[in-house]
Amino acid sequence: MVNNVLIAVIGAGGVGKCFLGQLATLAARRPSPKLDLCYICSSKKAVFSADYAGIDINSATETLAASPVAPKSLTALADYLAAAPSKVVLVDNTSSQDVADSYPLFLGKGVSIVTPNKKAFSGSYDLWKAIFSASEASGAKVYHESSVGAGLPVISTLKDLVDTGDKVTKIEGVFSGTMSFLFNSFAPTEGKGGQWSAEVKNAKALGYTEPDPRDDLNGLDVARKLTILARLAGLPVASPTAFPVQSLIPTELESCTSGDEFLEKLPAFDSQMEATKSEAEAEGKVVRFVGSIDVATQNVKVGLEKFDRSHPIAALKGSDNIISFYTERYGSNPLIIQGAGAGGEVTAMGVTADLIKVISQL
Amino acid sequence: MVNNVLIAVIGAGGVGKCFLGQLATLAARRPSPKLDLCYICSSKKAVFSADYAGIDINSATETLAASPVAPKSLTALADYLAAAPSKVVLVDNTSSQDVADSYPLFLGKGVSIVTPNKKAFSGSYDLWKAIFSASEASGAKVYHESSVGAGLPVISTLKDLVDTGDKVTKIEGVFSGTMSFLFNSFAPTEGKGGQWSAEVKNAKALGYTEPDPRDDLNGLDVARKLTILARLAGLPVASPTAFPVQSLIPTELESCTSGDEFLEKLPAFDSQMEATKSEAEAEGKVVRFVGSIDVATQNVKVGLEKFDRSHPIAALKGSDNIISFYTERYGSNPLIIQGAGAGGEVTAMGVTADLIKVISQL
Repeated sequence: MVNNVLIAVIGAGGVGKCFLGQLATLAARRPSPKLDLCYICSSKKAVFSADYAGIDINSATETLAASPVAPKSLTALADYLAAAPSKVVLVDNTSSQDVADSYPLFLGKGVSIVTPNKKAFSGSYDLWKAIFSASEASGAKVYHESSVGAGLPVISTLKDLVDTGDKVTKIEGVFSGTMSFLFNSFAPTEGKGGQWSAEVKNAKALGYTEPDPRDDLNGLDVARKLTILARLAGLPVASPTAFPVQSLIPTELESCTSGDEFLEKLPAFDSQMEATKSEAEAEGKVVRFVGSIDVATQNVKVGLEKFDRSHPIAALKGSDNIISFYTERYGSNPLIIQGAGAGGEVTAMGVTADLIKVISQL
Repeated sequence: MVNNVLIAVIGAGGVGKCFLGQLATLAARRPSPKLDLCYICSSKKAVFSADYAGIDINSATETLAASPVAPKSLTALADYLAAAPSKVVLVDNTSSQDVADSYPLFLGKGVSIVTPNKKAFSGSYDLWKAIFSASEASGAKVYHESSVGAGLPVISTLKDLVDTGDKVTKIEGVFSGTMSFLFNSFAPTEGKGGQWSAEVKNAKALGYTEPDPRDDLNGLDVARKLTILARLAGLPVASPTAFPVQSLIPTELESCTSGDEFLEKLPAFDSQMEATKSEAEAEGKVVRFVGSIDVATQNVKVGLEKFDRSHPIAALKGSDNIISFYTERYGSNPLIIQGAGAGGEVTAMGVTADLIKVISQL
């Protein structure tokens, strides 16, 4: 193991701040290898020095806010990190497609990457191949546990199953904290639940949705996660729009110019979701928004499905995710991972755990 | 990463054979680093050569059965592996205390270890400290995912939680496939279930128990797993008998000289378990055999507890394990891992996954 590792961080928002807190604790607790923060930037500002001197991690957010310096371009950053005197890990705490597109560049220059950013792994299949080819060629590592289910051990478990030669036959689950919260409230296993539009409004008020709830309801977030898992399971899925994804946005409201306008008009469409709910209830079931990957038939899909009230997917609580891996070795009872799949600290935890794994291999 | 890694295997029983199958696939699929099996032994026989030449993995079991050579002593084996021309990983697929006691010796000589053997990590706390000090000093790795919950990602998840600075407050679950199967049949969430002694007899007939079922019913297997998890969570538990463990063996039957005699006499004691079951039923609950660790109060215990029928622990199926991690970050809803916690292939999977992780760090 090396004596010194340099950390470069892009993004200092919710997850970024939590990560810095965890990094500070980690650096203090593990004297070897020494971890030095050599670069940090937001979309507007950056802190770094020509000699890669360590930036105090505990005050990094304040130092960044006060910095008069603009961030380096991604190309310039790659050159800067490639010229560093020690091994470097780039931590991408953004959800930026531009940063994701530059992963092959960084990896090609020997810079390892850890990130919760879904974009790199759920975009075009060409980008996926470019990322892993660059990593393979240079030996630089790329870890992205938090791109699915935040800190839950989803990616690592799937990789272990595949790497040890198990045959994954099916992956199924609730992959969105927002959708989980919405349906656990709208169609609870016990009691009646509220009107659909009221539940969406409530979820937004509690901070469970994106500023425009349509960014959750279109199903794309779940489709991106399914794309990542399907690819890890060996399916060359072309993109997150290459398979059926059910959007919960009424066609008539797709053109609303704001989330507020959408929320205002949504009650007029409550009867659609109410009908779906009643149909499930008539069968003694509840409706949930799930994703599934059937590996043998290469069938990937995202949308509403009905589940018995005693099914683990129906019994989920709060905004928890649940992911079931059906494999040849595990047989009829799947390997199940369940718990919070969103939130700054648990997302940052996946990033920090990945960082520890990468460091141990440098 | 190195070009060549030597693998030494102790134990060629159920898990050992499954591991060899997975190792053969792994070695064929991953050309670099080259994996060579340099030593394999059972309790009676061994195969190895003075020049550490690779033994054909696919036929290793047959070669071993036909070998006229006795195994090396553990001391001699440690010297042999320490003198090897490449990095060595020792795979201990036994449940031997003797082999476990020698881990500090191997680690001290730079030999990494992967194992499903619980004995090393659940015996005396002095052995635990000696193992991790030796690993720390030499840099040799020691991984033991399958010592709890077989291939389920239990140890790795707990380590990630702790290493990233989360505070684990409580760990609770069903840690024995045998106990899971027994109670899911004896006190199902729906229907009546059978007589206790009949369920034990049936579980034995199906191969779910040890040859003498008392080796499961005494609770020691669960106590060993709890000891491992408690220590990883930071509690210096002295031994698996240092906390309350409820034995399900009636006192009068502890002196039976065989498992068969025990099974023959067990029906006379069915009323005890029946009373426990009825008491739970009267509260609308079911009884389960669980282990729990309360980190704050340092309270570790193993035994019968009552759960609501809708509780995930009550709803478990077959011989599945379930492990819930309550932590500061995860809040009121725990991080849950569930699935088969016993069986040759899934146990070997944990060993193989550990081997892959160790190799990536050599």
